[in-house]
Amino acid sequence: MNDSESASPLCTEGEVGFVEYQDFVSPQRFRFESGGSIPELTVRYETYGRLNAAKDNAILICHALSGNHHCAGVYGMDERKQGWWNFMVGPGKPIDTSRYFVICSNSLGGCSGTSGPNSINPETGIRYRLDFPKLTVRDMVQAQCLLLDALGVERLHAVIGGSMGGMQSLQWAIDFPDRVGRYIALACCARHNAQAIAFNDTGRQAIVRDPAWQQGNYEPDQAPVHGLAVARMMAHITYLSDAGMEAKFGRKRRRSDAGKEHFDVEFEVESYLRYQGQSFVTRFDANSYLYLTKALDRFDLHGPLSLDDTLAVVTAPGLVVGFTSDWLYPPQGNRELVEALLRVGKDATYAELAMDFGHDSFLVRSPELYALIRAFLSR
Amino acid sequence: MNDSESASPLCTEGEVGFVEYQDFVSPQRFRFESGGSIPELTVRYETYGRLNAAKDNAILICHALSGNHHCAGVYGMDERKQGWWNFMVGPGKPIDTSRYFVICSNSLGGCSGTSGPNSINPETGIRYRLDFPKLTVRDMVQAQCLLLDALGVERLHAVIGGSMGGMQSLQWAIDFPDRVGRYIALACCARHNAQAIAFNDTGRQAIVRDPAWQQGNYEPDQAPVHGLAVARMMAHITYLSDAGMEAKFGRKRRRSDAGKEHFDVEFEVESYLRYQGQSFVTRFDANSYLYLTKALDRFDLHGPLSLDDTLAVVTAPGLVVGFTSDWLYPPQGNRELVEALLRVGKDATYAELAMDFGHDSFLVRSPELYALIRAFLSR
Repeated sequence: MNDSESASPLCTEGEVGFVEYQDFVSPQRFRFESGGSIPELTVRYETYGRLNAAKDNAILICHALSGNHHCAGVYGMDERKQGWWNFMVGPGKPIDTSRYFVICSNSLGGCSGTSGPNSINPETGIRYRLDFPKLTVRDMVQAQCLLLDALGVERLHAVIGGSMGGMQSLQWAIDFPDRVGRYIALACCARHNAQAIAFNDTGRQAIVRDPAWQQGNYEPDQAPVHGLAVARMMAHITYLSDAGMEAKFGRKRRRSDAGKEHFDVEFEVESYLRYQGQSFVTRFDANSYLYLTKALDRFDLHGPLSLDDTLAVVTAPGLVVGFTSDWLYPPQGNRELVEALLRVGKDATYAELAMDFGHDSFLVRSPELYALIRAFLSR
Repeated sequence: MNDSESASPLCTEGEVGFVEYQDFVSPQRFRFESGGSIPELTVRYETYGRLNAAKDNAILICHALSGNHHCAGVYGMDERKQGWWNFMVGPGKPIDTSRYFVICSNSLGGCSGTSGPNSINPETGIRYRLDFPKLTVRDMVQAQCLLLDALGVERLHAVIGGSMGGMQSLQWAIDFPDRVGRYIALACCARHNAQAIAFNDTGRQAIVRDPAWQQGNYEPDQAPVHGLAVARMMAHITYLSDAGMEAKFGRKRRRSDAGKEHFDVEFEVESYLRYQGQSFVTRFDANSYLYLTKALDRFDLHGPLSLDDTLAVVTAPGLVVGFTSDWLYPPQGNRELVEALLRVGKDATYAELAMDFGHDSFLVRSPELYALIRAFLSR
């Protein structure tokens, strides 16, 4: 997340300004790919800009694992923290809210307002916790689909996202070819390799081995915060790059090493990471973390058909962008998607940006990325 | 560790066969670089082969973070697990025990018999725990030095080690130029970069955030095993390579995904890593893990002088070997050592081996590595 945004002025020309989230509630049972279901579905979302009369200017933004629906603007004078993609979304910005009606919803299984393991089951009055059904990226897209129905958006001008959001973009193009005008997937992959699964499972083990986890049956104020913080610290390393961390932190020391406490913060990078872990637990639910990471691990466009056959149903043009320093979802895994799309005759293109911010590069200001997105949306 | 060794026959020609460890006890106060001290020093070690009359055929092997003094051979019919470098050490093997007198000792600060935080302080009758002094790689070498004095080894034919063991090899060449005939450092570096520190600190946080840690004052049977297991799982990923993990595990599933338990083992790689974590806690102490990883993070041949000035005191010829797939201590960091040595006019050489086993490549059988070590020891 780009905290440097928070210092810029509010409501100036070119800014989304004040926003409010809204909740869409579908009173019908929501069925998951796994066969499980929940009695009703809530989707929390924000919109920026206006849906035009032809209803053909909607863009859906899909957030990554730790993101949420608060993509642009600020909530008010008291809560000025800007949305996670504020530099990308606004009047005149690459995702131009003076032209497009932009929607961003909290992911199914998340913990920022959309139905997830921490939500109250209206049938029982208690939280779902591990009774929440097994979750897939396809389920996330299905929930977004119901939201679009409610908003009167039959067909998207575009769907766009990075990382988990990129998987959703691809899944949209596969599952709803008639509803997608174009799609953009950033820092994405067709499936996790063994290393990505290994990191995710280590994070999950950090949570489930925290005694406070209680088989998922913790109360929100007694959550397994230690395990979740460790999971986040580790994951955060995988979102950065070796070179980027070295440039930012190197071996800078935070303070004198003379103290008695051996294992206090010594290096700046430790301070940074511990802060990342500590702040994450105030805004994220441990069970959601388990469900979402599992959905990522299970995402596999190579199955049950081949990758080429899976992508053969796509009709929309697509842009996939890899980042040179991304070692979690390396460039090759992004390029592979476009190579498969091209093999099956699709309109798809690949761009690779040289940025030092690792997997999180798509969350960093970049004129090159702006230009790519702006141009592709206007095609 | 190379478990595949355990199936090979015992005591055959070319094998070290049965070994016993021994304890060297120095009754004098042992002083640490930090200024702290302990009332006496114990060093647990093994030897293989015989010291010759000229006492000039000794080789010291330094183990890595999770290793110990049991480097070759087996303890008996009941405990047949071979030492961690058994394929490298034995009669006729690259480190040839028919020619050399080979010594391997458990590191100072470790938990396999040498004085460490889990040892009993003879002055108080209770464990040192966090009263154990701050530890550096230089302290580890100083302890080995006292052992060599006791064994009557004035000058080593060679000192050799990988990873933390490589740091010790270098430190030997720097601190005791008159006592080192040659040195070999495998999969090493002059200092940790920000990413390596970040991974280590995340592992330490996993331990100290485990409620069982109790500020280090746990009893051995109530150790912070959950935190230590998570630390090990994460570290183990960093010891392997992306390509190596993909070749070995890929997305292979362990068993049907139909069960109710969402977060049971699903992928083979999860099963492997959880086993690594679980088995580690039966043989390693959490406080030792904290001390040893801190010693690694603090190791810095660039300071207080420049790298070139630090290495200017070396007199022995050196061999440094990097491994192409090692992303924890990448080849560049190994090459950097030799470039600096050459700049200051030293006899040093660099080799880079293409192996897919990541940082752990030096623990894997490799004819290329055998040949390099054999030839360099015979120079």
